[in-house]
Amino acid sequence: MDKRFEKICILGAGNLAWNLAQALHRAGHKVIEVFSRTREHAEELAKITEGRWTTDLAGTGRDADIIILALSDNAIEYALESVNPGDSLVVHTAGSIPLEIFRDRAVNYGVFYPLQTFSRKRLVDFSGVPVCLEANNEGNLEKLERLAGTISGSVYRIDTQQREFLHLAAVFACNFSNHMYHIAEILMKEKGIPFDIMQPLIAETSGKITGISPFDAQTGPAVRNDENVIGKHLDLLSSMPERQKLYKLITDHIRSCHGR
Amino acid sequence: MDKRFEKICILGAGNLAWNLAQALHRAGHKVIEVFSRTREHAEELAKITEGRWTTDLAGTGRDADIIILALSDNAIEYALESVNPGDSLVVHTAGSIPLEIFRDRAVNYGVFYPLQTFSRKRLVDFSGVPVCLEANNEGNLEKLERLAGTISGSVYRIDTQQREFLHLAAVFACNFSNHMYHIAEILMKEKGIPFDIMQPLIAETSGKITGISPFDAQTGPAVRNDENVIGKHLDLLSSMPERQKLYKLITDHIRSCHGR
Repeated sequence: MDKRFEKICILGAGNLAWNLAQALHRAGHKVIEVFSRTREHAEELAKITEGRWTTDLAGTGRDADIIILALSDNAIEYALESVNPGDSLVVHTAGSIPLEIFRDRAVNYGVFYPLQTFSRKRLVDFSGVPVCLEANNEGNLEKLERLAGTISGSVYRIDTQQREFLHLAAVFACNFSNHMYHIAEILMKEKGIPFDIMQPLIAETSGKITGISPFDAQTGPAVRNDENVIGKHLDLLSSMPERQKLYKLITDHIRSCHGR
Repeated sequence: MDKRFEKICILGAGNLAWNLAQALHRAGHKVIEVFSRTREHAEELAKITEGRWTTDLAGTGRDADIIILALSDNAIEYALESVNPGDSLVVHTAGSIPLEIFRDRAVNYGVFYPLQTFSRKRLVDFSGVPVCLEANNEGNLEKLERLAGTISGSVYRIDTQQREFLHLAAVFACNFSNHMYHIAEILMKEKGIPFDIMQPLIAETSGKITGISPFDAQTGPAVRNDENVIGKHLDLLSSMPERQKLYKLITDHIRSCHGR
């Protein structure tokens, strides 16, 4: 694969921008410019990636091959009012924003959506992060594939409608499963049980589905349709009506998925 | 620690019994007897653990130091009608069955509850499995602690009420989070996206909470209170009313937990 080095301008210095800019820098690309409304963030990231920084959107990206809008959903539309990409390839990194947000605002555009959760505190190893790409033409898509291929081994073509569903699926698989951990933590705290006891079970549960599908991996009272245990659990939750409702709804959903 | 070897009788040859019997055998204990209603299962497990097997409950455990009822919740009560433990220490392995099920049926009794999900297909490394113990007196509890300590590095004293909550918490953290993966899989299939794309995100999400609490680890539209994305997701789910209801309820629960 042709590993050409690109001149990149990154708009944003949040969790994703923080990880992506450094991965691109380490892969040999020139991160020539970092924008953030927060001066310290822009300055700090630009220092690491050895480029310049700015807090002023107007004029950003003029000399870049690729402009990456690594901004929150709301900020993307706002940024597009100020940025004039010219001939540069401009992409956003958002799961739930369509490609067509760029129509009439850019000539070359696309989406560069890494499906992972990022934080500034710990740098993610980008080589295992799936990168989902879309672009307004084949040439730009190939350009993004080359770029993504320099930092990740998992590169996919995913269109806007697929990406919307992928983002929704990620909310279930990631945000909602984390909330299930949180409820477990609350229940354990209630009886003075350290959350650590749950860690091996969580690790096994999430690790199991690399080998078998989540459908086949389902265990517990709901899929066994164990009325006895389900009844006990609903009793234990009787003083927490919201959690009881949640238990009941998820249990019913498991039963109906498994034809119980 | 005094690593005395016990003579053990295991009732059951299901997922837990399969893993536990082999762990005890490898640790040097004598698994003298395996019972299962299914002859092939009893025979197969007894062969591995080098003991005898039976399909007849009556008379089991007579010469054992410890009798382990590794049976389903419903089968435990049934088994107790037939088994006469005499002086042997008899334990069950169930999260939601109280210790007192043994009262008037045994002299020495307890609970030996390994908090993990087991399958016959893959042997779990028991050294990392938390084992939660309870017994009718301190001597029996210490005996169980010695036994558990020979196969696991995580041994806890957990009473009946705590165990009930722990089991309920495990349903949320394990069964319900797996169901969230399953819903993600359904949504992705709908648009022809391979589930593999979700694996790194699931691994990162479950791995994250070894360092920070699930409360602090929460991300996504609900905790950001991002009405825009939440609205889009509810639209995408409009043809699946059950899943839409689930999305809404979990989202509301996250918001209320985080004071949004």
